[in-house]
Amino acid sequence: MDTIKATLERIKPVSPELLQQTQTRLDNKTKPPGSLGRLEEFARRIVAISGNPDPDVSRKVVFTFAGDHGVTEEGVSLYPREVTSQMVLNFLSGGAGVNVLARHAGAEVRIVDVGVDHDFAGIAGLIHKKVARGTKNFAEGPAMTREETIAAVMVGIELADQCRAEGVGLVGTGEMGIGNTTPSSAIIAAISALVNKIRVIEQGLAFNKPDPNDPLDVLAKVGGLEIAAIAGLVLGCAANRVPVVIDGFISTAGALIASELNPDVRDYVFAAHKSVEIGHSFMLDRIGVEPILDLRFRLGEGTGAALAMTLIEAGVKVLKEMATFEQAGVSNG
Amino acid sequence: MDTIKATLERIKPVSPELLQQTQTRLDNKTKPPGSLGRLEEFARRIVAISGNPDPDVSRKVVFTFAGDHGVTEEGVSLYPREVTSQMVLNFLSGGAGVNVLARHAGAEVRIVDVGVDHDFAGIAGLIHKKVARGTKNFAEGPAMTREETIAAVMVGIELADQCRAEGVGLVGTGEMGIGNTTPSSAIIAAISALVNKIRVIEQGLAFNKPDPNDPLDVLAKVGGLEIAAIAGLVLGCAANRVPVVIDGFISTAGALIASELNPDVRDYVFAAHKSVEIGHSFMLDRIGVEPILDLRFRLGEGTGAALAMTLIEAGVKVLKEMATFEQAGVSNG
Repeated sequence: MDTIKATLERIKPVSPELLQQTQTRLDNKTKPPGSLGRLEEFARRIVAISGNPDPDVSRKVVFTFAGDHGVTEEGVSLYPREVTSQMVLNFLSGGAGVNVLARHAGAEVRIVDVGVDHDFAGIAGLIHKKVARGTKNFAEGPAMTREETIAAVMVGIELADQCRAEGVGLVGTGEMGIGNTTPSSAIIAAISALVNKIRVIEQGLAFNKPDPNDPLDVLAKVGGLEIAAIAGLVLGCAANRVPVVIDGFISTAGALIASELNPDVRDYVFAAHKSVEIGHSFMLDRIGVEPILDLRFRLGEGTGAALAMTLIEAGVKVLKEMATFEQAGVSNG
Repeated sequence: MDTIKATLERIKPVSPELLQQTQTRLDNKTKPPGSLGRLEEFARRIVAISGNPDPDVSRKVVFTFAGDHGVTEEGVSLYPREVTSQMVLNFLSGGAGVNVLARHAGAEVRIVDVGVDHDFAGIAGLIHKKVARGTKNFAEGPAMTREETIAAVMVGIELADQCRAEGVGLVGTGEMGIGNTTPSSAIIAAISALVNKIRVIEQGLAFNKPDPNDPLDVLAKVGGLEIAAIAGLVLGCAANRVPVVIDGFISTAGALIASELNPDVRDYVFAAHKSVEIGHSFMLDRIGVEPILDLRFRLGEGTGAALAMTLIEAGVKVLKEMATFEQAGVSNG
């Protein structure tokens, strides 16, 4: 627990003065004040997050965390469990959705095995951080032990620390795990105390009684290894003042755990898009972030995060590259 | 009128078979069917528009049409009229919002003087197509003659023909014209027969009595030169089977005129974003297109079109670059 605690203590809200100073700079650009809408929000937040008035988001990394889920025994997914490991190999070959969209965004994809039920020993290009070969079936007991949960969160924190050291300017989250919509929905139900009508989730909550005031308990009992790693990545990015773009439904469940541990993470989080899954808007509201895109994605992997990065980077370019009224000799109204 | 008529006759709906065939190809990619949402719509539409199963949208051009408006005499804008010409020079120097966002999108910006009240003679980099030095004040008479209107529409048509010849794969519209929100609102009011409570618009409509069944009459009496050129660009792109991304409120007013002349233009039009201006959603509904972004832009110039191009191109890359289930050895559910 020590290093999660230390990370939580490093997370501070961003400076309101830096937000205001950056907006003043944007208001001197040749356009009516505020007329580039949310791109201006992105620019001022990236300055405030990084503490750098001339922020560099050219180095971008999307992390795709992979893990399996015991709850697939309950028949919660249309796809067989082995698709998780097959897709890991597809990611490594560059043929999946997240590869295409990250290339488009100029971002690197890093694939992390945090809990796939497959032996990837010796496979190059994969970040080997397996904590367990999948979770247990939470309909019959806790998904993970507390030790496994902490180990998976630490995987994310350490990757965030490494990004800071490498000068990565923008981090994205993503995941692959057949069945992982179910633990994500269970996390929402546990935290919100809302009833979830899906039998296996209700059963898991009744059986495990996760404590909504102990987010790591919720994560351990009804979560997943890749969701825990995403929670860690969000915490680590906030602690390191690196902006982090969360992808869709499952990534947001991970970010929700991080936000329950320290609500100040909101200042560092960008929500890539509005998911079609029920409960997503509840999570975004509770974290306190507004989605950037609404393109009806429901793929995960980090696809939405990669695409949203292009818009955040556009906002930074508005700040850095647009002429001021004075520079351009344009009359200000 | 001859060449507008000839252009209108070249516009045909896209092939439903090509849309369906492309969706089938997308459904073989390693993802649940439809899970990349609107990116899949963009991909299948670009194939159907171009008639090319392997479409190339790498060459992208945003046209920013500039024109002045006699109605600025009525005090409709916060900015002085000379800002139109000052901004043209800012566009040519590369310091405006549209320059920054088009560079980000990998698109070229072409600035067209179709009606600025300024002498740009000898200025390099500008496309010189001035039809008149601004429109007349439509509160006191028609904004343009029918001849001027047709000449400005033809500017757009000819630029679209040229794009086709050059192999441009994606065209965007944009504009600069101090006061041009007012004629755009007047066009909506004239076409929709809705009451507009702004005095100068009501006065212009009462005085000029534009005929809603004659879109060129509406354009002439209460429109603008850059709005006419945008209408022509949209018609020309549809006739040439080149996809066209319309920017915000003013560009959509131009596209609405095109759509009233031939509703089949809808198949070729992408709506970049949802504007905050009243009446924008009416126009998009009437044309039959759904906006891509909602970032609260209200700048114009082509800024939204440039940014939306990055998402449309991402959709094409999904089609061209993602692996199929068979190629990747992934089990299909």
